[in-house]
Amino acid sequence: MKRCFGHLLIALIAISVLSLAGPSLAADDKQDPLPSWNPGAAKQAILDFLRATTDKQGLKYVPPEQRIATFDQDGTLWVEHPMYTQIVFCLERVPTLVKEKTELKDEEPFKTVLTGDKEAIAKLSIDNLVKILVATHSGMTIDEFEAEVNRWLAKARHPRWNKPYTELAYQPMLEVLRAFRAAGYKTFIVTGGGQDFVRVYAEAIYGVPPEQVVGTMAATTYGYAKDGRPTLTKDAKLLHNDNFAGKPEGIHLLIGRRPFAAFGNSTGDQQMLEYTQAGSGARLMMLVHHDDAVREYAYGPDTHIGTFSDALMDEARSRSWTVISMKNDWRRVFAFEK
Amino acid sequence: MKRCFGHLLIALIAISVLSLAGPSLAADDKQDPLPSWNPGAAKQAILDFLRATTDKQGLKYVPPEQRIATFDQDGTLWVEHPMYTQIVFCLERVPTLVKEKTELKDEEPFKTVLTGDKEAIAKLSIDNLVKILVATHSGMTIDEFEAEVNRWLAKARHPRWNKPYTELAYQPMLEVLRAFRAAGYKTFIVTGGGQDFVRVYAEAIYGVPPEQVVGTMAATTYGYAKDGRPTLTKDAKLLHNDNFAGKPEGIHLLIGRRPFAAFGNSTGDQQMLEYTQAGSGARLMMLVHHDDAVREYAYGPDTHIGTFSDALMDEARSRSWTVISMKNDWRRVFAFEK
Repeated sequence: MKRCFGHLLIALIAISVLSLAGPSLAADDKQDPLPSWNPGAAKQAILDFLRATTDKQGLKYVPPEQRIATFDQDGTLWVEHPMYTQIVFCLERVPTLVKEKTELKDEEPFKTVLTGDKEAIAKLSIDNLVKILVATHSGMTIDEFEAEVNRWLAKARHPRWNKPYTELAYQPMLEVLRAFRAAGYKTFIVTGGGQDFVRVYAEAIYGVPPEQVVGTMAATTYGYAKDGRPTLTKDAKLLHNDNFAGKPEGIHLLIGRRPFAAFGNSTGDQQMLEYTQAGSGARLMMLVHHDDAVREYAYGPDTHIGTFSDALMDEARSRSWTVISMKNDWRRVFAFEK
Repeated sequence: MKRCFGHLLIALIAISVLSLAGPSLAADDKQDPLPSWNPGAAKQAILDFLRATTDKQGLKYVPPEQRIATFDQDGTLWVEHPMYTQIVFCLERVPTLVKEKTELKDEEPFKTVLTGDKEAIAKLSIDNLVKILVATHSGMTIDEFEAEVNRWLAKARHPRWNKPYTELAYQPMLEVLRAFRAAGYKTFIVTGGGQDFVRVYAEAIYGVPPEQVVGTMAATTYGYAKDGRPTLTKDAKLLHNDNFAGKPEGIHLLIGRRPFAAFGNSTGDQQMLEYTQAGSGARLMMLVHHDDAVREYAYGPDTHIGTFSDALMDEARSRSWTVISMKNDWRRVFAFEK
């Protein structure tokens, strides 16, 4: 399979072996589909929702074709600190890009990136990050882009764990994805990240096929290579920014149905959770709170850094969204932990 | 289920009853999954493709997760003459629209529509039709739009058969959709029509869920109603024109994988078929040729009207695409035929 590459394949096999070795993840009432979760309100909320919406006799039953669940990626399914993975990929491409398009070297945000000033780079706005994302991803065919991402993922390592980014998916959330699918839900990733970037590895890591990845979208242009073979080339034209209000808009654009469950971790996911909750019947809205400086990172309303604002925590409380405490709710964070 | 409405439900029940009464449509080698097809090259091409791509021992085997098939709608899955169904819907909305936005009455293409001159209206370009489509579909919430389409479909009748448009799906193609799904394919509609329009009825008529409808897309804007409830409002901003080169671009945008099979009937589908064929392994490219003036319509390369050009027929021959003769290949055209 084209989308697979050596490393991801190994990761996938490792995950499969773990699921065989550990407690079964089947959505069988007798067995625990969420073994990496500690007992508590968060775990219970997931189990109750899945039971209620698949119980044909119950009032909260959801017909199979309507079972849609959406998951933010960065900070919800995998590590987003100290920087979004895709931004690391993009930033490393900026010098090459500026060599090709010299006029960019005096333009922001490229100018800031070229200074190498980590603090300044870390402060770039989401709009500026999207600008970098679109610029560094354009001008190549979709096949070249996919190959480039695969090459990069195979060699890139997270600075803290010195592990491939693809191993930094949260084990408890991989179990949630599987439990939802076992209950007949279609699981979609709804990410502020580039749709084409996430699609490269989403199937191998998360079991989410490309057609179920919604993200920030750039246009492509259909044309013909020198040998007459049809090609799709990535443009520098942004079609859709899948953050904040863009998330429900992106969900409508690609899915066309309102989700019954939505998972996020930041203000960028707020509107997706509001939109989910506004539907009738059972709805599940959950936010991952990064409060575990030992096993991962601590940031959020209590630390006043990051994008889990006080206002978001207030909204979560007032709307009865369930906040997942990484520290208390997750027995294990990564698959590679013993 | 919200997306259902009385009429479609009846149509769906009618189709289910027919499939029970008629030969079984299960993809069982002993039974014919395509009973409305006459024996011939077209029927054989479909059966051979499905057998080859699902045969684990064969060289043309396609893993289940990669099984994607795309279908144009107008003229491929249902009647498109004398006018695209959605255009009829749009044109009937133009007077209301012009009452709200009086400045449009002197602007093309609205001016032409208001004259009521059928010949002039029939000659409007695809770009002008898209302009009408976007203008008449904007300013309402997605729920209001869905309700409006449902109301219209329930009362609108095709001028020739005096039947609801939803009964004018081609029975042989409904069987093809089912046969592909029975073989593990995800069936997508890839239409030049409005994505939100087709999504309203695609599940009831074709068994294709909203998330598998790719079409011409307008933006939406997320906001809040007076009561604070989140809403998505349809904008007049065109995001993607899903015709010609727009079809492979739309496939990449929403699906992110190359189809293994593609069905169309016009120059608007040409690039989708080229893109499909450019993949490795078994690929199936088919074009419906409307050559049946008795049971439906005759138009195409031999009549020099419509959008099945001589150039398309030449390309089909030179690239070995299979042309379906409605007259010879289809034993029955509509479910309501005896």
